[in-house]
Amino acid sequence: MSQQVKEAIETKKQLMELLASREDEMIAIRRHLHENPELSFKEEKTAQYIADFYKGKDVDVQTNVGNGYGIVVTIKGDRPGKTIGLRADFDALPIHEETDVPFKSKNDGVMHACGHDGHTAYMLILADCLIQLKSSIAGTIKIIHQHAEETPPGGAKSIVESGALDDLDQVFGTHLTPALPTGTIGYRSGYAMAGRTYFKLVIQGKGGHGSAPHQSNDPIVAGAHFVTAIQTIVSRRLNPFEMGVVTIGSFDGKGSFNVIKDNIEIEGDVRYMKTETQQLIEQEIRRMTSGIELEFNVQCELTYTADYPPLYNDPETTEKVVSILRNSEEKDILSVVEISMNPASEDFSYYLEKVPGTFFNIGCKPKGVEKVYMNHHPKFDIDEAALLISAKSVAEVVCSYYGINE
Amino acid sequence: MSQQVKEAIETKKQLMELLASREDEMIAIRRHLHENPELSFKEEKTAQYIADFYKGKDVDVQTNVGNGYGIVVTIKGDRPGKTIGLRADFDALPIHEETDVPFKSKNDGVMHACGHDGHTAYMLILADCLIQLKSSIAGTIKIIHQHAEETPPGGAKSIVESGALDDLDQVFGTHLTPALPTGTIGYRSGYAMAGRTYFKLVIQGKGGHGSAPHQSNDPIVAGAHFVTAIQTIVSRRLNPFEMGVVTIGSFDGKGSFNVIKDNIEIEGDVRYMKTETQQLIEQEIRRMTSGIELEFNVQCELTYTADYPPLYNDPETTEKVVSILRNSEEKDILSVVEISMNPASEDFSYYLEKVPGTFFNIGCKPKGVEKVYMNHHPKFDIDEAALLISAKSVAEVVCSYYGINE
Amino acid sequence: MSQQVKEAIETKKQLMELLASREDEMIAIRRHLHENPELSFKEEKTAQYIADFYKGKDVDVQTNVGNGYGIVVTIKGDRPGKTIGLRADFDALPIHEETDVPFKSKNDGVMHACGHDGHTAYMLILADCLIQLKSSIAGTIKIIHQHAEETPPGGAKSIVESGALDDLDQVFGTHLTPALPTGTIGYRSGYAMAGRTYFKLVIQGKGGHGSAPHQSNDPIVAGAHFVTAIQTIVSRRLNPFEMGVVTIGSFDGKGSFNVIKDNIEIEGDVRYMKTETQQLIEQEIRRMTSGIELEFNVQCELTYTADYPPLYNDPETTEKVVSILRNSEEKDILSVVEISMNPASEDFSYYLEKVPGTFFNIGCKPKGVEKVYMNHHPKFDIDEAALLISAKSVAEVVCSYYGINE
Amino acid sequence: MSQQVKEAIETKKQLMELLASREDEMIAIRRHLHENPELSFKEEKTAQYIADFYKGKDVDVQTNVGNGYGIVVTIKGDRPGKTIGLRADFDALPIHEETDVPFKSKNDGVMHACGHDGHTAYMLILADCLIQLKSSIAGTIKIIHQHAEETPPGGAKSIVESGALDDLDQVFGTHLTPALPTGTIGYRSGYAMAGRTYFKLVIQGKGGHGSAPHQSNDPIVAGAHFVTAIQTIVSRRLNPFEMGVVTIGSFDGKGSFNVIKDNIEIEGDVRYMKTETQQLIEQEIRRMTSGIELEFNVQCELTYTADYPPLYNDPETTEKVVSILRNSEEKDILSVVEISMNPASEDFSYYLEKVPGTFFNIGCKPKGVEKVYMNHHPKFDIDEAALLISAKSVAEVVCSYYGINE
Repeated sequence: MSQQVKEAIETKKQLMELLASREDEMIAIRRHLHENPELSFKEEKTAQYIADFYKGKDVDVQTNVGNGYGIVVTIKGDRPGKTIGLRADFDALPIHEETDVPFKSKNDGVMHACGHDGHTAYMLILADCLIQLKSSIAGTIKIIHQHAEETPPGGAKSIVESGALDDLDQVFGTHLTPALPTGTIGYRSGYAMAGRTYFKLVIQGKGGHGSAPHQSNDPIVAGAHFVTAIQTIVSRRLNPFEMGVVTIGSFDGKGSFNVIKDNIEIEGDVRYMKTETQQLIEQEIRRMTSGIELEFNVQCELTYTADYPPLYNDPETTEKVVSILRNSEEKDILSVVEISMNPASEDFSYYLEKVPGTFFNIGCKPKGVEKVYMNHHPKFDIDEAALLISAKSVAEVVCSYYGINE
Repeated sequence: MSQQVKEAIETKKQLMELLASREDEMIAIRRHLHENPELSFKEEKTAQYIADFYKGKDVDVQTNVGNGYGIVVTIKGDRPGKTIGLRADFDALPIHEETDVPFKSKNDGVMHACGHDGHTAYMLILADCLIQLKSSIAGTIKIIHQHAEETPPGGAKSIVESGALDDLDQVFGTHLTPALPTGTIGYRSGYAMAGRTYFKLVIQGKGGHGSAPHQSNDPIVAGAHFVTAIQTIVSRRLNPFEMGVVTIGSFDGKGSFNVIKDNIEIEGDVRYMKTETQQLIEQEIRRMTSGIELEFNVQCELTYTADYPPLYNDPETTEKVVSILRNSEEKDILSVVEISMNPASEDFSYYLEKVPGTFFNIGCKPKGVEKVYMNHHPKFDIDEAALLISAKSVAEVVCSYYGINE
Repeated sequence: MSQQVKEAIETKKQLMELLASREDEMIAIRRHLHENPELSFKEEKTAQYIADFYKGKDVDVQTNVGNGYGIVVTIKGDRPGKTIGLRADFDALPIHEETDVPFKSKNDGVMHACGHDGHTAYMLILADCLIQLKSSIAGTIKIIHQHAEETPPGGAKSIVESGALDDLDQVFGTHLTPALPTGTIGYRSGYAMAGRTYFKLVIQGKGGHGSAPHQSNDPIVAGAHFVTAIQTIVSRRLNPFEMGVVTIGSFDGKGSFNVIKDNIEIEGDVRYMKTETQQLIEQEIRRMTSGIELEFNVQCELTYTADYPPLYNDPETTEKVVSILRNSEEKDILSVVEISMNPASEDFSYYLEKVPGTFFNIGCKPKGVEKVYMNHHPKFDIDEAALLISAKSVAEVVCSYYGINE
Repeated sequence: MSQQVKEAIETKKQLMELLASREDEMIAIRRHLHENPELSFKEEKTAQYIADFYKGKDVDVQTNVGNGYGIVVTIKGDRPGKTIGLRADFDALPIHEETDVPFKSKNDGVMHACGHDGHTAYMLILADCLIQLKSSIAGTIKIIHQHAEETPPGGAKSIVESGALDDLDQVFGTHLTPALPTGTIGYRSGYAMAGRTYFKLVIQGKGGHGSAPHQSNDPIVAGAHFVTAIQTIVSRRLNPFEMGVVTIGSFDGKGSFNVIKDNIEIEGDVRYMKTETQQLIEQEIRRMTSGIELEFNVQCELTYTADYPPLYNDPETTEKVVSILRNSEEKDILSVVEISMNPASEDFSYYLEKVPGTFFNIGCKPKGVEKVYMNHHPKFDIDEAALLISAKSVAEVVCSYYGINE
């Protein structure tokens, strides 16, 4: 065993011990954030709190990164090596909290119902510990505290565009999920979460009296045919083995029963696991819009905005992370399991388009609970033991980059 | 020539002279009503005005007839004979008047934009003249001052149900229309104006996340198929020579783009010229609603309310009226023309379901006007000469019942 | 009464007597033709029979007129006057006769099931009588024996194109109908019979395996949407008071259950009472075809052939004919009634596009029959008394042109 | 190493050597069968050939098993042990062969275009070798020579019903595929090939004249709505992560353009990877059929026949087979790869419903060929080296049951 490996092992041991010793602090931070949630793009105080945390520490801190309150903290190790990114998001949701926790949201109508408070809490302590061990680190670690994950266009895209990821070799993120028991870590290689597109279609016909359809041009009829026709995109144009959804969530054709409307507005949601599927569906919706326009002699205005792309976990990286975590000596990392593809969306996908990496789930099912409330539920809660597990898991991954597992 | 016929001719002459002598009064009443319009079912002051008009006159006046302010005035002639009804409606519309007449509406947002002020004005004077000539009349004349013609369920149906028409042999009504020049009278035998039905369909599906259609049941898709399917009622189920319209005026499926709605609400308007067509369309919409329910596993709640029936002018009566008017010696009755069927609706149709009669149009196109504003337009106006013509035309018809044309 | 009128009255009297005296001959001719029916465009022997009839008579006979065996016989009166056309068609139908008449079709599978045998029979005798009375006639009569009425493109269009109608002032035709009792004549002013268009749509998709729709392009799905969409032409684009029908009679998409077809073929039938309606429907079908092409990325080949136009009876002429027939002194012309519009088609409409005239129906309901078999039925039969009535009715009309009714 | 293991290793070695020594024989058999293909359910001579092969050998041979020419050969080892089944199918396809091989099909229009000739060839030789080594085998091997794999209802289901699989512990089958290079073996755990359902829907409307839709009931319109509506099964009712296809391969509505048809016939193909998906789709098609029936007042007759179920490879067995093959010492077994799910269907799925097992692919891409012709193509061909590889692969699996790999 080389001297270098010995040192690395020693460093990891120190890091794990440091993290364990600061578990209470993680919990305290999480509770503070939970009590003071802020909506996407409005996380002014949260960002200040984070910036304050780093004050006086020997690191580079950039604030107001991207299109909001993003913060990028760069921890340069004393020795040269790879540069990796670790991301934790910090915005909350427009949900009225219904839990009974003592640190319940003080900001009525806003709630950390998706665990971002926990993400930020463990990441701050992990960052601090890494700063402490800088002299033993070969390489650079960028901590990305991301604003506005919940609301398109999200913060991720703008952070990527800011150039913050340009020098990264790898990027990692985690998410707390009560779908898995505490101690279980969930991974999925390749496409793991769905991409999403928002579209709006305004169909302009010609209004008139309900008794004289020939003097008008009924946009509701054209819209009904559009809804009917686009079903064939999923049923006939998609590879039956590929995931794709086209949902019309809104068909706004409210009017008087005896008046033919002038125009209507349709809004839709498209989901897919692959960029090619997104392209195919977009092409077909555009084609069908033009077809309907001609068929019913209406004018169509289509706004088509792909927001979060599908989230693609680099298979090689994912395999490596699975192996690292399965071999972890930390007692509270109990198991590592493959999870199903998830139709929900996450803007960490933008990072993964730029830099190979992986996004994995940390089980946080509250103890002794029968019915689990999932993310985005007003009664969502976590087992706080998952904070230290999150920190340790990411620490395992980080250490693998600095000679430890070689 | 019998003594009776001589007397009848004399009576008619007197009636026509009386009417002509009171033209200014008609116009004054019309202007008063125009200045003080009241909405359907809220015509309190108008009804009071009418009741006051009859005060002290030797006739039976019933107020609050039907479901509102209806007034029925019974003029009994001194000799026995037929009983005929004459109807004039008196409600106004929720329209902001845009004319420049000196007697413009003082009730902002309410306007006599359909000529009911004129109908009532000529009818009051005609009634008064008939009261004066009671001793020469063989039979009974019922003047029906009807409230609420504009708003379903309308006043007509309730007046019929009140029994006011039970003793009628014939019933007549007129309408002012600027589509015909002053002096021209328009008639149509048989079905002349469309019947109308309102329907509402609530489709109850199951809401859910836009990315998981299989866990929801999308009512917008079911609704789109309903809209598409019911087109075949007109295109395939109706006799191609029969008039029928099924319009979906409102498709209220407004929601969030990425959420599948729980339910939607559709409202529709059905038009037809025959009761059989109404029955056929109702049967088909009910059938299709049940079909959609089964097809898409949704729950449908259908409210189906036929309001005004098609207006059917008794051909024999119409022919007689046409003949009477064509042979009129009144110089201002210039011509009598057949008019097209009209897709609009009118609750006089209820009277004609009960008693044979006819409803005819009195031309009132304002003089020296290039662009005519039709009924229900904020700039609607009439040539007031049409008031006397209305009165004389109805007088001709009335007199025909009392020996004059025999 | 002028000398001219006296002579005209005398001529008509002679004509009517001549016709009555030759009733047996009419019947004999009709039975001969009935026994020897020939299909449209194949009426070689029938045409020869007609030509032979005129042999030796002092008239101009043109054969092989138009696109088949049409015959035009020109009877020039001795005095100058108007030129009128009289048309009788002579083709039969591909129907296997099921009557028990002694003169049943000898040409198996072919039958005079539409009364053209009767039309030709009375017209030949009428022509012969007119030839006899030539010296008393002021004007010219063109007898048009028309081939191929039953099968598009029909004979009428080509006869018009031949110039045979160029010198006509008026044109007349009749049709035998068992829908009316013998002695009753049916007329309809204005649009009276529907026009008809044939169309064919080939939708070219891309064939493939039933399990891999994304590698194919399913023309059945595109075709189903076409069928669904075109329902809105009648339900939404047509004036609800106008008659229009769009029927898809054939949807040829037969194939293997597990193979996506390469293309399908749709054939349709369009009906209308006005040329404007035909234009509107054509425009909409063309538009929708282009729309479907774009919407489903298929190639569409549309063949659109308006065959018979709507039949339009000139109102003035029709009114005159009605008046003439109502005032006829012939005892067997019992009544003249207005009939409904008829969705069936008739190529006499081409004549009426060229020359004002009217086409009227001659009742021929067989006596003592409970159930009447209509035209085109294998058991179709006529009351032969209708032949003389046909001849007399047309004679009345003809005579009106030569001073008789003035 | 126990004596038993030593013996097993020795037995496997002998088996592999025996197989290798008889490669020419395999090829000769394959060519004989290729030259003499017979269609499903008509494989009389092929079955006789197989039966003859076993004549005089010390095994139990059952012929005419199931609904055709199935043959089950039972090889009982001298020692007790598990009972496993090996299946090879032997029917050919209705395809006109277009290859240039010297042993081209002599039965015109029939071709072994799916490799069943090869399956049977290697299986006969493998069976013979196993018979030779019976004394060393602990357990029983059932060789299932299956008829009629290509044509539903197939032979497999009936063989299962015959009880032939009742005593099996495991069952195995292989398929030759030119999609993989020779030496490569493809496997897939879990659902691997699609299930398939055939359905037929007769829609009974009411025929009539094209101009009078209201007197008929148009089944083409109802059918078009059915086609449109069932698109929503895949687009809205299926879990977007599950595979499902509903194809209408045949829409037989051919008729005359101007006649409304009496009835039409639709035939469809349904594919799925899971029995639950089949159940869901069946339920929805049945529901929609009832819905359409009500909606359009037509009578529907639905024949719904699930033929081959999805093919499910037991994960444990598959993993074991993969491990065995990856550890094989046979030099021509080059690699073992996971393959994608396949939308095609295979009646081996019936065996796997009854007994756990796995079905794997043997690469046979012809050498030196640019363009590969896939199964069912008229130019389909194989690399005959794949026969010995097939035999060896199955031999490896068989041996694993008799102590060899323990």
